[in-house]
Amino acid sequence: MGQVSDRLEELGLELPKRFAAPPGIEIRFEFVKVHEDLAWISGHGPMDGDQVLMSGKVGADVSLEEAQEAARLTGLSILASLADELGSVDHVTEWHKAVGFVNAAPGFNGMPGVINGFTNLIRDLWGEQGRHARSAIGVAELPLDWPVEVEAFVSVRR
Amino acid sequence: MGQVSDRLEELGLELPKRFAAPPGIEIRFEFVKVHEDLAWISGHGPMDGDQVLMSGKVGADVSLEEAQEAARLTGLSILASLADELGSVDHVTEWHKAVGFVNAAPGFNGMPGVINGFTNLIRDLWGEQGRHARSAIGVAELPLDWPVEVEAFVSVRR
Amino acid sequence: MGQVSDRLEELGLELPKRFAAPPGIEIRFEFVKVHEDLAWISGHGPMDGDQVLMSGKVGADVSLEEAQEAARLTGLSILASLADELGSVDHVTEWHKAVGFVNAAPGFNGMPGVINGFTNLIRDLWGEQGRHARSAIGVAELPLDWPVEVEAFVSVRR
Repeated sequence: MGQVSDRLEELGLELPKRFAAPPGIEIRFEFVKVHEDLAWISGHGPMDGDQVLMSGKVGADVSLEEAQEAARLTGLSILASLADELGSVDHVTEWHKAVGFVNAAPGFNGMPGVINGFTNLIRDLWGEQGRHARSAIGVAELPLDWPVEVEAFVSVRR
Repeated sequence: MGQVSDRLEELGLELPKRFAAPPGIEIRFEFVKVHEDLAWISGHGPMDGDQVLMSGKVGADVSLEEAQEAARLTGLSILASLADELGSVDHVTEWHKAVGFVNAAPGFNGMPGVINGFTNLIRDLWGEQGRHARSAIGVAELPLDWPVEVEAFVSVRR
Repeated sequence: MGQVSDRLEELGLELPKRFAAPPGIEIRFEFVKVHEDLAWISGHGPMDGDQVLMSGKVGADVSLEEAQEAARLTGLSILASLADELGSVDHVTEWHKAVGFVNAAPGFNGMPGVINGFTNLIRDLWGEQGRHARSAIGVAELPLDWPVEVEAFVSVRR
């Protein structure tokens, strides 16, 4: 496997602008926190800079397929934060764990399929090193009414 | 304390079949991800292979006592994944952290008691090494309508 | 920056009594679990000993401003647990990650602002070493009907 940034190009994927606070929101946390060779990635949603790309409840306003796309877009926003923090996504050597929070309409239980939109992106890009443990749950509300929020934990080299 | 597998036998406990995808669900994540001497365990529910052992909202369809049993069954499914990944549950040396997600009916706040069903199992089996930090929260929906989902983080030797 | 305990005094902050089980609740988990130089902090709420300082749904019973204060009080309860476990809050050297669970009324999406009540406290006390990754989500129910629950992950020296 070549470098992840080459693979992004092969797949024709472009990273969004780094997650930024929309008006009225004050961001006091770090998007990525690195400690030795580990990094914690804060909860991200489907953002391009300060633009919310998708919103609403999955199973009501947002279909399963749209929510999978929201999870993929969330993954791309995470990659933008990692590229910004580390200099390049190539410095992420291995994915360990993710949690996918789905803004679920009452009775919607398709969380694993939704979060596959994130997991498939990471595995497409990192191959074996992209395989990770994961939890997927349905939550009551999310910031900015995102359909999906994902946090993750990785190994990095600097 | 003897080995955990001996203790399981003493207690007359049998592990279920390893968590497998029910029809219509595609599992893209790892049940357990090991990195050096640490392991992240994905969110599990009360499963025996691809069979859902309990489902429904706690405080409505499912009583507190039944939910505690669901949390215990979830713990046994986690042990089955660990045995499969590591060769034996004896290779788990210490429990550090768990999160228990409870599929809570409106107004149900007994999450700590529910997740004790998981925590008591782990402490019965590992003794001092089973003592762990924990969060318990009430969520809107869970995959397969599980009453309980638990993820955890442990030390392992291989 | 001086020691954190000096800074607490400068700010006129006093730690509450360590989190204890209210009647009817059995606490089987550890408030803080230390492994080598890392520590996992269990989900805490706005407690003073076994007294619940605030409760209710944010956006309905509890305003945004009150919920921010609940998040700050939750941070102080976490500091009480750390002081008790480690001997002093000065033994926490760095904050890495927090998750803030908000007991959200339907349609309430101001989770990031609420959890800033916690994050601002930690950054006021630890400065650069207090900067952490974070997720904020809206959940269906919380133990003891807390408006806010926070868990965290830090580095420690003993």
